[in-house]
Amino acid sequence: MRAMKPKLTLHSGDPAPNAAPARHCVNLPAPFAMRLGGVLPEVRIAYETWGRLAADKRNVVLLFTGLSPSAHAASSPADPTPGWWEEMLGPGKPLDTERFFVVCVNSLGSCFGSTGPASVNPETGRPYALHFPTLTVEDIAAAARAALHALDIPRVHVLVGASLGGMSALAYAILFPGEADVLISLSAAIHSEPFSIAVRSLQRELIRSDGAWQGGDYPPGDGPREGMRLARKLGMVTYRSATEWLERFGRERADCAGHEPFGIEFEVESYLESRARSFIGDFDANSYLYLSRAMDLFDAAEHGGTVENAFRHLKIEKALIVGVETDILFPLHQQQQLADAMLKAGVATQYVPLPSKQGHDSFLVDVDRFRPTVGDFIAAL
Amino acid sequence: MRAMKPKLTLHSGDPAPNAAPARHCVNLPAPFAMRLGGVLPEVRIAYETWGRLAADKRNVVLLFTGLSPSAHAASSPADPTPGWWEEMLGPGKPLDTERFFVVCVNSLGSCFGSTGPASVNPETGRPYALHFPTLTVEDIAAAARAALHALDIPRVHVLVGASLGGMSALAYAILFPGEADVLISLSAAIHSEPFSIAVRSLQRELIRSDGAWQGGDYPPGDGPREGMRLARKLGMVTYRSATEWLERFGRERADCAGHEPFGIEFEVESYLESRARSFIGDFDANSYLYLSRAMDLFDAAEHGGTVENAFRHLKIEKALIVGVETDILFPLHQQQQLADAMLKAGVATQYVPLPSKQGHDSFLVDVDRFRPTVGDFIAAL
Repeated sequence: MRAMKPKLTLHSGDPAPNAAPARHCVNLPAPFAMRLGGVLPEVRIAYETWGRLAADKRNVVLLFTGLSPSAHAASSPADPTPGWWEEMLGPGKPLDTERFFVVCVNSLGSCFGSTGPASVNPETGRPYALHFPTLTVEDIAAAARAALHALDIPRVHVLVGASLGGMSALAYAILFPGEADVLISLSAAIHSEPFSIAVRSLQRELIRSDGAWQGGDYPPGDGPREGMRLARKLGMVTYRSATEWLERFGRERADCAGHEPFGIEFEVESYLESRARSFIGDFDANSYLYLSRAMDLFDAAEHGGTVENAFRHLKIEKALIVGVETDILFPLHQQQQLADAMLKAGVATQYVPLPSKQGHDSFLVDVDRFRPTVGDFIAAL
Repeated sequence: MRAMKPKLTLHSGDPAPNAAPARHCVNLPAPFAMRLGGVLPEVRIAYETWGRLAADKRNVVLLFTGLSPSAHAASSPADPTPGWWEEMLGPGKPLDTERFFVVCVNSLGSCFGSTGPASVNPETGRPYALHFPTLTVEDIAAAARAALHALDIPRVHVLVGASLGGMSALAYAILFPGEADVLISLSAAIHSEPFSIAVRSLQRELIRSDGAWQGGDYPPGDGPREGMRLARKLGMVTYRSATEWLERFGRERADCAGHEPFGIEFEVESYLESRARSFIGDFDANSYLYLSRAMDLFDAAEHGGTVENAFRHLKIEKALIVGVETDILFPLHQQQQLADAMLKAGVATQYVPLPSKQGHDSFLVDVDRFRPTVGDFIAAL
C-alpha cells in the first residue's frame, strides 16, 4: 500500500502554536449536537499524527487520551519534546509508526487546542465557561470521529485508550459499529462505580470551593489554582497505589519537615505537593470539571438498556482488555467485566490482568509491563 | 471481689455538662510534659464509666476512641442516649459491664471535655489553638494513664481500642509494661503507612485552606466549616470500601440530581454530603489537626529503634488483633505485622482477619462480625 499524508491545516486560532509545533487542528464542517442537549456551532479538534497513512487508509490507529493529556503522545520531527506515551508510540514500538498512521486527538472539552469550556462561544464572544453543554464520553468519541471524517479518514483499524481514553474508545466502538476493527482498552470500564464517582465528585468540589473559580467565570488563563492543586493531590492519592508508596517512601521524612505548622513532614507529602504544583496552570479548571463528570456519567448500558444489548451490534473483531491489580479507580473486576461482555458479544478478546504496583497510572509508568502486552497483541494483528 | 464506685468529680469547667450527663472529668494533679516538647500546666481528661470497680480493682477495661468520638461509648442510666459502640458495651455484651468496670476516655487533644487546642491556656487566658504542643499517640496514652492514677486506679486488665484508639492502647502497653494484662487492637497498626499519611495530610490541608481557619485562631465554637466538611468527605471515602458502595449505591441517581451545575448527581454523592454535614459543628478543627497528625507520627519502632525492641519489654499476656479485608487505611498486612510482632514478643496472640465489607469503619458498623470476635476472646479471659 502506498503511504500518503492527509491534508492537514494549522488553524490560526490555535492558542499556542509555538508551544505545540506538531499540533494540527481541524474544524468540524457542521454544528455539533451534544448527546445530552445543546449544540456547539463551531468545533475544532486538535490532534497530532505519526507515521504515514496507507493508500487504502486501513492502517489508522486512533489514540484517545486520559483526562489530562494533550494530543502530544510522542515526539516527532516537528516536535522533539517527549510525549506522554513516548515509550509506546514510534518506530518499532507497540504503536509502530512504521506500520500505522497514529492519530491522537485532544478530547472535545479539553483545553489543548480542542473546543472546550475555555473556548470562545461565537454566539457571545466570551468563553463558554459553564454555558458549555454537558459533556459525555460519547461526545468525545463522536467529535473525534467527525474530525477523522473531516480529514477524509472514513474508518479506524485500531482504537486505543487508557482510563477516560479507554471509555472513549469503547464508546466509539458502540456508537459506530463497522468503523473500527480492533479495540485496546487499558484500565478503563463499561461505567464508573461509586468509589471513583465519589473521588471525582470531591475533586470537582475542591475546585468549585475555591473562591477564584467564581462560578466558572474566572478570567481566561487564570482560575482556581488552589482548588486545582488540591484536586490534583486527591487525584494522585487514587492514581497510584499504597503498595508503590510503601516501597518508595515508607516513613521517610521530608527535607522541609517541620517548617510550618501542620506543613509537610513526610516524603510522601512532599511528593504530592510537587506533583500537584507541576499540574496547576497547565489545565483549565472548567475543562477538568467537564471531563471529570463525563467519566462519572459514562455507562455503556445506556446504549440498549444493558451492556449485553449495547455490545450486541459491535463489529469489533479483536479486543485487548488490560487492567492492573493495584488500580483502585478502575479495579480489576471491572476489567474482567468488560472482557466477559466482549467475549459474550462474540469479540475475540484477550484479557490481561497485570501485577503492576503503580495503580491506575501504571499504563503511564510501568511501561515495561504494558509495552510487551500491547506490543504482542498489535504485532499479531 | 466487692464492687465499688471510685470517687468521681464533675468539674465546673465542663463545657457542656447537660449535653453529656454521664461525662466525668478528672484534673491531672501535675503539669503534663508532652513527648515532643512543651508542658501543659493543667490537663483535664473527660471520661465515662460503666459497671462497677471490683474491690481488688482488677476488672478495669480501658477503652480508647478513634479520632472523632467522645467518651460516650454507650448509654447508661445517667445518659440513655446511644453511644458510639452501643452494641459492644453493656450487660452481657463483649465489654460486659456485669463483669468489668469499663472506662472510656476522651483523648488528650480532643474537644469533648478533655484538654485540647480549644481549651483555654491558663498562661494566656485564650485558647491554645496552634500554641498547643505537638500531640503524639503516646501523650494520649500517658494522659489516660495519669487520669486513671488520679482516680486511684493503678492498673488495667484489658486495653481496647480501634483505629487511633488501637494505636493508643498499643502505646499504653509499650510505655507502661506491667500495668495492663490484655490488649485488643482493632483496625490499628504499629505505624502509619504513606497512603494513610497522604490522605490525612490532604484532609488537614483542606481544613487549613479554608480562610475561616485563620491560622488556627478562629473564634471559639466557630471555625473552618467548609474545610471540615470537605475533610470529612475525604475521610468517608477512605473509611468505607468500594465494595460496600457498589452494593449499596451502584449507579443510583440522587433525588436532587441536576439541581446545580456540577452538583450532586449520584446517590453516593448525596450520602457523602449528608454524612459530612452531620459531622461539622461537633468537632473542633484544631483538635482534628492535632489528632490526625498524631496518627501519622505514631511509630512503635521509635521505642527502641525497632518494633522488636519496642515489644521486648511488653508484659501483655494475651492480645487480640483484628483487621478487615476491605480496610484501605489500616490494611490487613498491617494487622498481620502487628500480630506477628506480638507473637514474636511472647504474647499469646489471636489474629482475626474479618471479611467485612465496610472498610476501616467496620468496627463501628459490622458489629455482627466484631461482637462475637471480641466477645469470645474476652469471655475466655
